Amino acid sequence: MTRTVDLNADMGESFGSWRMGDDVALLDIVSSANIACGFHAGDPDVMNQTMRLAVSNGVGIGAHPGFADLKGFGRRQLPLPHDEIANAVTYQLGAAQAMAKRAGGAVRHLKLHGALANMASVDHALARACYEAALDVDPEIVIMVLAATAMEKVVRDLGCNWAGEIFADRAYNDDATLVDRSKPGAVLHDAATAAPRILKMLQAEAIITEAGKHIPCQIDTICLHGDTPGAVGMARGIRQHLTDAGIAIARL
Amino acid sequence: MTRTVDLNADMGESFGSWRMGDDVALLDIVSSANIACGFHAGDPDVMNQTMRLAVSNGVGIGAHPGFADLKGFGRRQLPLPHDEIANAVTYQLGAAQAMAKRAGGAVRHLKLHGALANMASVDHALARACYEAALDVDPEIVIMVLAATAMEKVVRDLGCNWAGEIFADRAYNDDATLVDRSKPGAVLHDAATAAPRILKMLQAEAIITEAGKHIPCQIDTICLHGDTPGAVGMARGIRQHLTDAGIAIARL
Amino acid sequence: MTRTVDLNADMGESFGSWRMGDDVALLDIVSSANIACGFHAGDPDVMNQTMRLAVSNGVGIGAHPGFADLKGFGRRQLPLPHDEIANAVTYQLGAAQAMAKRAGGAVRHLKLHGALANMASVDHALARACYEAALDVDPEIVIMVLAATAMEKVVRDLGCNWAGEIFADRAYNDDATLVDRSKPGAVLHDAATAAPRILKMLQAEAIITEAGKHIPCQIDTICLHGDTPGAVGMARGIRQHLTDAGIAIARL
Amino acid sequence: MTRTVDLNADMGESFGSWRMGDDVALLDIVSSANIACGFHAGDPDVMNQTMRLAVSNGVGIGAHPGFADLKGFGRRQLPLPHDEIANAVTYQLGAAQAMAKRAGGAVRHLKLHGALANMASVDHALARACYEAALDVDPEIVIMVLAATAMEKVVRDLGCNWAGEIFADRAYNDDATLVDRSKPGAVLHDAATAAPRILKMLQAEAIITEAGKHIPCQIDTICLHGDTPGAVGMARGIRQHLTDAGIAIARL
Repeated sequence: MTRTVDLNADMGESFGSWRMGDDVALLDIVSSANIACGFHAGDPDVMNQTMRLAVSNGVGIGAHPGFADLKGFGRRQLPLPHDEIANAVTYQLGAAQAMAKRAGGAVRHLKLHGALANMASVDHALARACYEAALDVDPEIVIMVLAATAMEKVVRDLGCNWAGEIFADRAYNDDATLVDRSKPGAVLHDAATAAPRILKMLQAEAIITEAGKHIPCQIDTICLHGDTPGAVGMARGIRQHLTDAGIAIARL
Repeated sequence: MTRTVDLNADMGESFGSWRMGDDVALLDIVSSANIACGFHAGDPDVMNQTMRLAVSNGVGIGAHPGFADLKGFGRRQLPLPHDEIANAVTYQLGAAQAMAKRAGGAVRHLKLHGALANMASVDHALARACYEAALDVDPEIVIMVLAATAMEKVVRDLGCNWAGEIFADRAYNDDATLVDRSKPGAVLHDAATAAPRILKMLQAEAIITEAGKHIPCQIDTICLHGDTPGAVGMARGIRQHLTDAGIAIARL
Repeated sequence: MTRTVDLNADMGESFGSWRMGDDVALLDIVSSANIACGFHAGDPDVMNQTMRLAVSNGVGIGAHPGFADLKGFGRRQLPLPHDEIANAVTYQLGAAQAMAKRAGGAVRHLKLHGALANMASVDHALARACYEAALDVDPEIVIMVLAATAMEKVVRDLGCNWAGEIFADRAYNDDATLVDRSKPGAVLHDAATAAPRILKMLQAEAIITEAGKHIPCQIDTICLHGDTPGAVGMARGIRQHLTDAGIAIARL
Repeated sequence: MTRTVDLNADMGESFGSWRMGDDVALLDIVSSANIACGFHAGDPDVMNQTMRLAVSNGVGIGAHPGFADLKGFGRRQLPLPHDEIANAVTYQLGAAQAMAKRAGGAVRHLKLHGALANMASVDHALARACYEAALDVDPEIVIMVLAATAMEKVVRDLGCNWAGEIFADRAYNDDATLVDRSKPGAVLHDAATAAPRILKMLQAEAIITEAGKHIPCQIDTICLHGDTPGAVGMARGIRQHLTDAGIAIARL
């Protein structure tokens, strides 16, 4: 049996007159698109355009809710009550569902964005609040979780559809958290380094940390980035490396 | 056969720490609630609270999309392309659907808010763009239209579910438009005047203009207001007058 | 020599169509108005109206900058770098200065709002960043600080104009912080209790804590609140009690 | 005597994580920078950074207020009362003044942005409302006006400091308005065409329309654009062409 994996990337992060990322290029590479829902990035027009492109490219659509923080791009940890966060996730998921339906598609997965994802990866109660809110809206939705974190624990407990995710371009600590961006080697910048590493993790069915430790986990999807021209090339290189090694790329 | 009619009111118009309207009182009076979707008023928390109240009171939930204009409360006519407005309607309807579902209910109708409604009541193409966007998301949704306007023409052409609406507290011109608020008598302030007038319109199955002209139209719902204590009393008085006359109040 | 004291209150906290507080009533009671600058509340129109009222009542105008967080009314502690906060304070102060000048007045003092004030009252570096930003814009501005906190330490170090503030309606802990709102007795609700307590503090030139401890400090201004009808009556009662005791009310 | 002229460009139009324009390159070319004030683009951090760069490059700082419309980049004509627009101009100018002062500079001129400029160029009352608001805040400020429009009429009537502006890259109609962007030849894309044309206008002291008509006017400043790499090259080429012809570039 062939090993298959999903490739995902954040998309639809333009806002009004401001452009971000090369969504057209990325949609030729990935199999799932995490589409911003207007709170930290994106707007109804950007969502519509991005989703139509995703549909015509056969790329799976995901809702990518974040904090209501355009200025901070959803990267600032806001101290909000869980029920407010759950309401914000519900709202954004619903908006994405309607936009996807009108674009001829459907929302298949949900992935938390930025600071909200960071917080939920270490806070079981927050992860549960977000995921229950999403499942109340669509019990069949696939929750994308950072592999081997609190998020994964929560989706296993909930018994819902889920997908474990690892990052193509980030080094891991021995507790499965990401090495801080400020440290050397924390972020990988070329496919030549990142692609064989990711392939090894897929084959080992484990996160391989910077120190070489193996953390066994379910790897369903790999997160790529595309906000710079170099990143698109890197994403393309990783896809090529995986398919050359016999890995099939298929959406969730 | 008993004549039945729906009573509707705008609701969920608080925002963050700012309160507006007496939703709790109104939800005892109306049968349908037009709930703001966060663009001109409301936010996910207000929506959640308002919808839960509506569900527990058996009041029908409507999405009430408006222009993205908190400062102007959606009352300023923004010169936007129809496709942008359609995207904004889609987005808000989807958000409302998800919020309603999580609150244990469902969005049954859609009513445009403020300046967007005013514009669509005289612009067939705009009305069609908004309503097609909503019907793409939910083909069964009931579109609430200002009776005898361009809106009604459009829903008849579309062949969709719709409800004709008249205002309890506004005087009408002979072309079925509302008398400008700045003119004397344009706005009615007490149930003693408004209630018998509305009853007469229901019995005549026509808008009765200030000049006494009858404009035959389908009247399915009556718009009440509740943003002041006096308005709540007036709404209650109108409901009482109608039920005393044997009209049954029932949601769409 | 007569003891004089300033009475201050937060004002201009309406936004667009949403009203908050009874500014007209308060402007008859206080001698200084802390006017929201559009980030957590207020908008250019509300600022203009409030400042014109303040000028015509002879009430001193203060800039009341907060976090850019309308939804949270500036009450959520946002994890922002100090230089971003300093930029936000500068921006809001400048906006307030221009609005005040056009209204025929001038900004005399600056008071941080909500979560920003709470954070700066325990974080010397943050307080210094905010106050230096304000003093760069106006070296003569009076910085209003919570008496006996980190804020006071900073303004003493800076050698700038400042005023020490205590709350009329809040109980104090023995370290000069406010008793948490969730605890019984933390918030005082009537002038009969609050007014004699404040008078005692003024006479003692000290914060008197719940446990009876005296924390000597410079008291230049007393913070009143006016966001409810009851609060306006309480503010009026406190003013009356102080003037009856021979305390003169005068702006900074 | 040498002819001197100012070169201006819009700047500081990034917002949060979104970049726009190449301000660093432009600040080597222009003598005046019109800096967005956070309503249609920019934010306090972008303003601070842009103003510090302008100061260190010796470029004059201008406030560039626009409609509060991030999504539409201030390019949508909002139907607001003149007093609301005047308040918004006052607010933005004040914010810019404070940011400039803290950056070691000062706001020397004011130029309206986008749709607000378009509206004011044909509406004397609106132009007057905006300019009086600015002059109330700083009676010495230089108002930058589109040459030969209603704006110029107003500043002449007001008797204030002003500068007449023409566009380097836009064709003109015979009534001094700009040729609609949708028409061929409306926008010039290379210095080879634009530079000699501008030089001819400077020498003729007149706008030269597409049809060849001369509209005599005072030309103090030329508007360049820099939002694309090509535009920066074009701006550089125009500057070179003018200095080669003996025109001195100097800020207002």
